[in-house]
Amino acid sequence: MKLYNYFRSSASFRVRIALALKGLSYDYLPVHLVKGEHKQESYAAIAPSRLVPTLELDDGRHLSQSMAIIEYLDEMHPQPRLLPLDPFRRAQVRSLAQLIACEIHPLNNLRVLKYLVRDLKVDEEAKNAWYRHWVRDGLEAFERELQQLPASTYCYGDQPTLADCCLVPQIFNGQRFNVDFGGLTRTMAAFDACMKHPAFQQAQPSACPDNEA
Amino acid sequence: MKLYNYFRSSASFRVRIALALKGLSYDYLPVHLVKGEHKQESYAAIAPSRLVPTLELDDGRHLSQSMAIIEYLDEMHPQPRLLPLDPFRRAQVRSLAQLIACEIHPLNNLRVLKYLVRDLKVDEEAKNAWYRHWVRDGLEAFERELQQLPASTYCYGDQPTLADCCLVPQIFNGQRFNVDFGGLTRTMAAFDACMKHPAFQQAQPSACPDNEA
Repeated sequence: MKLYNYFRSSASFRVRIALALKGLSYDYLPVHLVKGEHKQESYAAIAPSRLVPTLELDDGRHLSQSMAIIEYLDEMHPQPRLLPLDPFRRAQVRSLAQLIACEIHPLNNLRVLKYLVRDLKVDEEAKNAWYRHWVRDGLEAFERELQQLPASTYCYGDQPTLADCCLVPQIFNGQRFNVDFGGLTRTMAAFDACMKHPAFQQAQPSACPDNEA
Repeated sequence: MKLYNYFRSSASFRVRIALALKGLSYDYLPVHLVKGEHKQESYAAIAPSRLVPTLELDDGRHLSQSMAIIEYLDEMHPQPRLLPLDPFRRAQVRSLAQLIACEIHPLNNLRVLKYLVRDLKVDEEAKNAWYRHWVRDGLEAFERELQQLPASTYCYGDQPTLADCCLVPQIFNGQRFNVDFGGLTRTMAAFDACMKHPAFQQAQPSACPDNEA
């Protein structure tokens, strides 16, 4: 398999975590978002949506959208499982993942921040306030959801799930913008547990070949 | 089952479509977003994230996040299927749904538009331009994805899927803000096919008990 991705892209990071958890090897193909490589014809031919990540299967077919890719990997390579077998529990994990992927992250990705600055003439301080507002607001909702669940090491139970694949990149992003994580007890405990796991360390931006830090 | 929802909420509309496609009956419990009913204690006790929709099962358990709810319904009530059985095809449908639910809709929901106006002091014209920009930009990506697929009645194949459950509410929203749908040939053909289907008609905002139109 090949993964078209960018070290700092949260959605790419999610898929790298899933691949690492499952011990699947892949070719890392960097797509430099800040240089606009995702909009070039060579990438657009592979990914009509021009977003990262894209997973290329060994037979040459492509898949996009990080959660769809991760569920595909989980169905094809079920060990270790990233979604519980029970339908209700599986829905709860998907719900946690979507709370991040549909409610927090979309408001803070690169193209949105660019629009705020370029089209709405928002200054640096207001842009950062926007960023922090949505991350904090969303993570508070996430924390309230976790508080309803039985005690666990990770977001949902004692093994990493799709929810952890989404949470960790969101925390990394929030750290870059100095988001206040105070009081997010369960959330940050899950994050800390993840960061002790070798798969999460292996997938993190600083471990990527295109890392610029 | 009971569905806590709001007639104009896109995420609620998605779940109503899925319930209607499967012929499942439910109690319609309106939560008035504009009046802030989702933030009241009575609702927060049911939905810690304070978002709509929430599905209450007959045993009293709750599920949130529209795509997670729809996948749960599809697993528990598999006829008619809203996701193909083949893992790759299923991933393609999820990817289309997520292209709307993770890339377009989050930028245009009520709380985001409120933040633009209240915190960023964006005027009505710039707010509408923001809205139209993200819907148009996202639907162009969606259209490019559809153009890669074999000809079909709906978004993916000749039966409605999760992708159609997400597309139709997004088009409804876009219509309210006069988005230009020109050139979105496959997308709008799928929308038109959906709107000839009784389940989509039955689920639309104007057919809801809390409709204010």
